[in-house]
Amino acid sequence: MTAKEIPYKIYLEENEMPKAWYNVRADMVNKPAPLIHPGTHQPMTLEELSPVFCEELCKQELNDTDPYIEIPEEIRDFYKMYRPSPLIRAYCLEEKLGTPAKIYYKFEGNNTSGSHKLNSAIAQAYYAKQQGLKGVTTETGAGQWGTALSMACSYFDLDCKVFMVKVSYEQKPFRREVMRTYGAEVTPSPSTTTEIGKKILEEHPGTTGSLGCAISEAVEVATSTPGYRYVLGSVLNQVLLHQSIIGLETKAALDKYGIVPDMVIGCAGGGSNLGGLISPFMGEKIRGEADYRIIAVEPMSCPSFTRGRYAYDFCDTGKVCPLAKMYTLGSGFIPAPNHAGGLRYHGMSPVLSQLYDDGLMEAISVPQTEVFAAAEEFARVEGILPAPESSHAIKVALDEAKKCIETGEEKTIVFGLTGTGYFDMVAYEKFHNGTMDDYIPTDEELEKYFETLPPVE
Amino acid sequence: MTAKEIPYKIYLEENEMPKAWYNVRADMVNKPAPLIHPGTHQPMTLEELSPVFCEELCKQELNDTDPYIEIPEEIRDFYKMYRPSPLIRAYCLEEKLGTPAKIYYKFEGNNTSGSHKLNSAIAQAYYAKQQGLKGVTTETGAGQWGTALSMACSYFDLDCKVFMVKVSYEQKPFRREVMRTYGAEVTPSPSTTTEIGKKILEEHPGTTGSLGCAISEAVEVATSTPGYRYVLGSVLNQVLLHQSIIGLETKAALDKYGIVPDMVIGCAGGGSNLGGLISPFMGEKIRGEADYRIIAVEPMSCPSFTRGRYAYDFCDTGKVCPLAKMYTLGSGFIPAPNHAGGLRYHGMSPVLSQLYDDGLMEAISVPQTEVFAAAEEFARVEGILPAPESSHAIKVALDEAKKCIETGEEKTIVFGLTGTGYFDMVAYEKFHNGTMDDYIPTDEELEKYFETLPPVE
Repeated sequence: MTAKEIPYKIYLEENEMPKAWYNVRADMVNKPAPLIHPGTHQPMTLEELSPVFCEELCKQELNDTDPYIEIPEEIRDFYKMYRPSPLIRAYCLEEKLGTPAKIYYKFEGNNTSGSHKLNSAIAQAYYAKQQGLKGVTTETGAGQWGTALSMACSYFDLDCKVFMVKVSYEQKPFRREVMRTYGAEVTPSPSTTTEIGKKILEEHPGTTGSLGCAISEAVEVATSTPGYRYVLGSVLNQVLLHQSIIGLETKAALDKYGIVPDMVIGCAGGGSNLGGLISPFMGEKIRGEADYRIIAVEPMSCPSFTRGRYAYDFCDTGKVCPLAKMYTLGSGFIPAPNHAGGLRYHGMSPVLSQLYDDGLMEAISVPQTEVFAAAEEFARVEGILPAPESSHAIKVALDEAKKCIETGEEKTIVFGLTGTGYFDMVAYEKFHNGTMDDYIPTDEELEKYFETLPPVE
Repeated sequence: MTAKEIPYKIYLEENEMPKAWYNVRADMVNKPAPLIHPGTHQPMTLEELSPVFCEELCKQELNDTDPYIEIPEEIRDFYKMYRPSPLIRAYCLEEKLGTPAKIYYKFEGNNTSGSHKLNSAIAQAYYAKQQGLKGVTTETGAGQWGTALSMACSYFDLDCKVFMVKVSYEQKPFRREVMRTYGAEVTPSPSTTTEIGKKILEEHPGTTGSLGCAISEAVEVATSTPGYRYVLGSVLNQVLLHQSIIGLETKAALDKYGIVPDMVIGCAGGGSNLGGLISPFMGEKIRGEADYRIIAVEPMSCPSFTRGRYAYDFCDTGKVCPLAKMYTLGSGFIPAPNHAGGLRYHGMSPVLSQLYDDGLMEAISVPQTEVFAAAEEFARVEGILPAPESSHAIKVALDEAKKCIETGEEKTIVFGLTGTGYFDMVAYEKFHNGTMDDYIPTDEELEKYFETLPPVE
């Protein structure tokens, strides 16, 4: 098939959209380690998870046997409002680079949440509604997840209580207003509305908050308010399951034109996008049906895969959540204040951690100034202004495409463009003004955080 | 055809995309009045326009005979990166409203400029490049047009000098950074880089600028710098021509499913979106092949159509540009400071003005608090957070759909959703906080501005 027979944007028809999510755990030889109870260190049961999460979502969290889980029709109808997302052939970028490589990207930014987060938010809101709940609670940092959840809750007429890290609440008023537009109640964290919030404020007066603290407040409200549950936008198995829609659509779009990628590249924070994008490709790889290079890209300032430990750790800094076995920098780890590129979670999805440990995927860490340079290079040719998170994948995709110029290889590169950077202009401004620099933690610093790992054998 | 046979989003195939723009002037019985020279009051000639605009664009500006003008392949290739834009069936909104009406909207917000402005920006940049120019100059208020032009210029490696109204430059730093990401030089206006800027600063020290002043600075730089021309994002005939891509795609998508709209609704500021959206429908109406209600929606605080005069007026407050015959509030008119909803231009496209004067379209003015309420109602169901400008059309579309509940009529409503509101959260915040109010100019106030109309018979 010659190049121009493939359109600039491959859209699936509505009837070609996936009707089931793909659960890569079912195909994994070494299953991801189970969540364990922080006190007993025993695997969490359905009963223990149910006070925190919706029942159906607990089942999905524990299900490592069913390869396909049907997407309820109501969720598919919602998906149809903003999906299928386009798989875009980067003809303009290829020409500009002068590379023989063929570059495709799956663009998840064409919805108001600005990212792929909506794919799981709508699923989690749906199951909460199904269970007859009144509402859900969550935390948000930069606000992408909070926005997605607000949209999903407004669609299903659910209450949505968002604890937003105080520094972001104050510095990102626009994100806050988007959430309010969708009817969410947004509280700066730490707050005086929870016991744990009050305690933290007493101990650290004037603190501007952290994601870990916001999680603790959201979980407290969910478990102490009748009719509420807590929801999370990444890391969990259920989230990766919902995000498999990204990979399934990508695979279907490629198959439609007989395209076989050499490599699939995604950015990795908690793993929601990467896990979703790669899952069907990983499934084929595990089953020995195909081989792909699968590459996770993370920031050098928060290098969970490339410099972390594979160990049981707390998911939150408040240490109220179950423990997960994952590549982690220690739950006390916080990226340097100059880090503007997102992907700042200390750990990594247990599913991806196991796949990485099994040697089924690679990981590369990149410095943020190079990430923003790649973002700008991409934006100027392909039009789309990418989120800093997504730009990690762009950076490595560009590097690989440039290698092909030297080698002459016509490699097919697929990467995930998870979202847009419209609410990240402060970071872009730093980059333009030359006040952005790169921070790489020293081995000594990392060692200090590893000491916060819990003593689980 | 039953409802669900029509998908949520109708996308044209790449090979179904229009290959020519449609020039509604060719079909108009009463042609729009020509631009006239501010000194001689004689129609502007190609020679007189050429120092300001690119040659090919001058020809397009004056061409009221050719119904179709081919879209150059390079522009079509660029269009393919973000077009065709979807025509969305608002199934969720219909269900929520409980209306028998069928609602469709053409969504132009899925590109980084966030609006339809890119459709003309890329065309104007292309012709500048073709002519061998070094760059272009323009003005921008809120920044939508400036962003679109920056993207277009970066694609064609053209210099882009944007004069941004000082108050916006300071209050909307994010828009400024987006433009800088695309390599544009953004100068707050009035500036000391132009003669007229210096003069204005001397006369009005501390002024925060106006669109009229920014236009004057941009024109001065374009006409005094070798290799530069001035470009504009609305009002002009050439802009409406380029924007006809919106209407042509809409018509093609409707035709594909045999859908005939009862009404076509668009917001109207300078007229670029409305003119583009309605042009093929208007063409059929003029030729007697079909009948549609065509509705322009404008803010009550800037009511050019509904309360303006149809007269020759200055296009800019600096009075350096040619005069245009249009519905106008007078070039001195500035909407009240509390006006947050965009669409603040004092005049209206000469093409649309003539069509309105001929009774071929209606105009409705709406108060801004109702516009934001409609925006929020729409966002919560359809997901997309609309630009305040676009929300004027939403407001009237919702009103019409609600009328159908009472009458039981199954009307087919098509409206233009020109863009997203991600950079308008300050306005949404005012709405949420209840600090937004409605301003309607008194007759006396309008009379005062009408006195600024030039004495042209």
